[in-house]
Amino acid sequence: MSLLVKNAAIISQDEKRSVLRGFDILVEGSRIARVAKGIKEKAEFVVDAKGCFVVPGFVNCHNHAAMTLLRGYADDMELHSWLSAKIWPREAKLKEDDVYWGSLLACVEMIRGGTTCFADMYFFMDGIARAVEESGLRANLSHGMIDLGDKGKREKELREGERVVREWNGKAGGRISTSFGPHAPYTCSRELLEKTLELSKKYGAKIQIHLSETRKEVFDLKKQCGKRPAEFLGELGFLSSEVVASHCCWVSKSEVSLLAKRGVSVVHNPVSNMKLAGGNAMPVQEFFEAGANVALGTDGACSNNSLSMFESMKFAALLQKNARWDAVVLNAQQALDLATRNGAKALGLNAGVIAEGKLADFSILDFSKPSTVPVHNAVSNIVYSASPSNVRDVVVNGKLILLNGKIQMLDEEKILAKAQKVAEDLVSR
Amino acid sequence: MSLLVKNAAIISQDEKRSVLRGFDILVEGSRIARVAKGIKEKAEFVVDAKGCFVVPGFVNCHNHAAMTLLRGYADDMELHSWLSAKIWPREAKLKEDDVYWGSLLACVEMIRGGTTCFADMYFFMDGIARAVEESGLRANLSHGMIDLGDKGKREKELREGERVVREWNGKAGGRISTSFGPHAPYTCSRELLEKTLELSKKYGAKIQIHLSETRKEVFDLKKQCGKRPAEFLGELGFLSSEVVASHCCWVSKSEVSLLAKRGVSVVHNPVSNMKLAGGNAMPVQEFFEAGANVALGTDGACSNNSLSMFESMKFAALLQKNARWDAVVLNAQQALDLATRNGAKALGLNAGVIAEGKLADFSILDFSKPSTVPVHNAVSNIVYSASPSNVRDVVVNGKLILLNGKIQMLDEEKILAKAQKVAEDLVSR
Repeated sequence: MSLLVKNAAIISQDEKRSVLRGFDILVEGSRIARVAKGIKEKAEFVVDAKGCFVVPGFVNCHNHAAMTLLRGYADDMELHSWLSAKIWPREAKLKEDDVYWGSLLACVEMIRGGTTCFADMYFFMDGIARAVEESGLRANLSHGMIDLGDKGKREKELREGERVVREWNGKAGGRISTSFGPHAPYTCSRELLEKTLELSKKYGAKIQIHLSETRKEVFDLKKQCGKRPAEFLGELGFLSSEVVASHCCWVSKSEVSLLAKRGVSVVHNPVSNMKLAGGNAMPVQEFFEAGANVALGTDGACSNNSLSMFESMKFAALLQKNARWDAVVLNAQQALDLATRNGAKALGLNAGVIAEGKLADFSILDFSKPSTVPVHNAVSNIVYSASPSNVRDVVVNGKLILLNGKIQMLDEEKILAKAQKVAEDLVSR
Repeated sequence: MSLLVKNAAIISQDEKRSVLRGFDILVEGSRIARVAKGIKEKAEFVVDAKGCFVVPGFVNCHNHAAMTLLRGYADDMELHSWLSAKIWPREAKLKEDDVYWGSLLACVEMIRGGTTCFADMYFFMDGIARAVEESGLRANLSHGMIDLGDKGKREKELREGERVVREWNGKAGGRISTSFGPHAPYTCSRELLEKTLELSKKYGAKIQIHLSETRKEVFDLKKQCGKRPAEFLGELGFLSSEVVASHCCWVSKSEVSLLAKRGVSVVHNPVSNMKLAGGNAMPVQEFFEAGANVALGTDGACSNNSLSMFESMKFAALLQKNARWDAVVLNAQQALDLATRNGAKALGLNAGVIAEGKLADFSILDFSKPSTVPVHNAVSNIVYSASPSNVRDVVVNGKLILLNGKIQMLDEEKILAKAQKVAEDLVSR
């Protein structure tokens, strides 16, 4: 398979953040073979991108895709009652097929939003993996493990986590990678975390974890063992560049520096944090200063309620400005970095940048919509003005999965109708 | 002209916030004549809204429409240097025709976003008024007046403010109303404010004003005259139900109660406040408790950079939750109230509710998009998940101005191309 994208303005996201105007992109197989002006090679498929901007695909580093089924089911509630009265009782009734349909819905939404890869932590991962396989998207999947100190539960969770890694890693032509997913220090025993670390080393797999999302979990752990969550994980030897830690809102300065030093990627989820009223903004500036890799996530559709990375970039930039009384911090370019190159780095992907040798994961944006005219600054338009309606084409692993606004590998209409039915059924069980 | 909308699910926004399923809406002239099931009357135009939701048109209570021309021109800057180094020098080069094209661009964006009415404060108001007239939208227009204590400037501004009211009030078949626009207590002299009050009474016109957007302006005035801005206006006798005050972020509890008591409508602009890092969230809960009418605005496209009221509703709800560490506050229903019935009340419109006798200003939303499936709760979907891409049809003053996603009264393609050119020219002058 070869693909030639002609006449593009490329937001390359390379080291210099070059914008290449009037360039072509030649894709061979799953990789970008050349980026140059006037490429003469013949390709099986040619896309004219004149007047459009090509941007690396967004990497949504924190999602629970199947939670689309509960989008709008319970909003404006205090976190604990939201979970215990609404979310957990419904999740207890989920079946693998529900997860499959909810994930397909999420995939369609993400493709339309220019997301080319997402990280997911949930259960019934076979359902999610099947959806990813069919959709053409790339994903890093982990079975979410919670033991609450129960040995039987721990062993069961670890078995399932390991099964998912064994069965799915490298599948879908390499689009699926896997990781281990201990839910959080407050829901996982020390033994579960230690065993996870062992398995991660055995399989060379990454670890997804929730870290210091709320103030409560930090002080609960501190009361219990005298340490804050990142300190606790540090002393376990748990922290490394294999770890992708979501939220990190309530971290001390010394935890910021510890996480950065150990090479942990931290994932900001501004919409979810604001909606659930965690009360704090991730200290993104401190993470930058400490040299940490900061990525971006939407979190699940229940606590967002959208999977748009455009929206999350805008919320990220504005939340930092608001929290710090400083309009200069987390500028548009940095927000775009979070969503592209930093996200790819977090998941260990050779992507997030448009350059030769990189995975061919990118979107073609059409700015000829009223909300993205004029174009004084394309990066500003992407972060502050654009939306999924600007996404014309999406390429993942060298393959067009959205073309002229049409989903290529899935039956979108059928998925929307079926997901609506599954969702109605789920809440009436 | 008559119009019949069939088989709708109506988010009525009436006192009980009824959702009416399977209802029809009969529009005669500019008003809603009937809302009932199975209306038999013949109408000149029939729209089938089966599977769709009808919602009152959004009322964007604070805008500077022509600033679309500078969208993305200068972001991530500290407020004062942003204004003095970037915005004001460009505004000094504006001509009426630029304002016309910038406003047309804004109108197209607003129509596509389900906004049916907006309040505007700017200059070259003839340009904006012409755009509104052609677009089919409803608007309340004011010439923004600044005198900085200069008598000559004051008289000139007042003359122009009065001319706009005289020439445009009631025009465009009643779609255009006008108001006086003293910019803010820190840019207008006491004399200008007193004269404005006189003119407002003379013409029965509303007053648009910026109030306590930043901490600095509050303490500058306090230093100057010993009073905070709302206190100062209160003692002038300036505050009444004719006043629409934007921002009101830095107000004391006693100012909240004063503004509420005098019947002032306060306009929240969450995106702009966050982007410019004003550092505070409007105390919406306190305004609610004091019985004030709280409306919603996007502010100009320069400090947002979008005119989507969907986005502003989500930011409003999430900013309150974040600021107060309370996920329960400013729920989806309240956010929708801000954008519809409260906005209409602020501008003195008999609209914002879908009921007999009300102005026929509403949108038809199609939720069959991945980001708005499933529909567990339509109001939640509108506030937390929807976007302009869900807006299928828009009716203003009884007339369809967006039909099946197509702008009816304007040449959208021409406007986008021309606005891009005007914007490029403006920044190179």
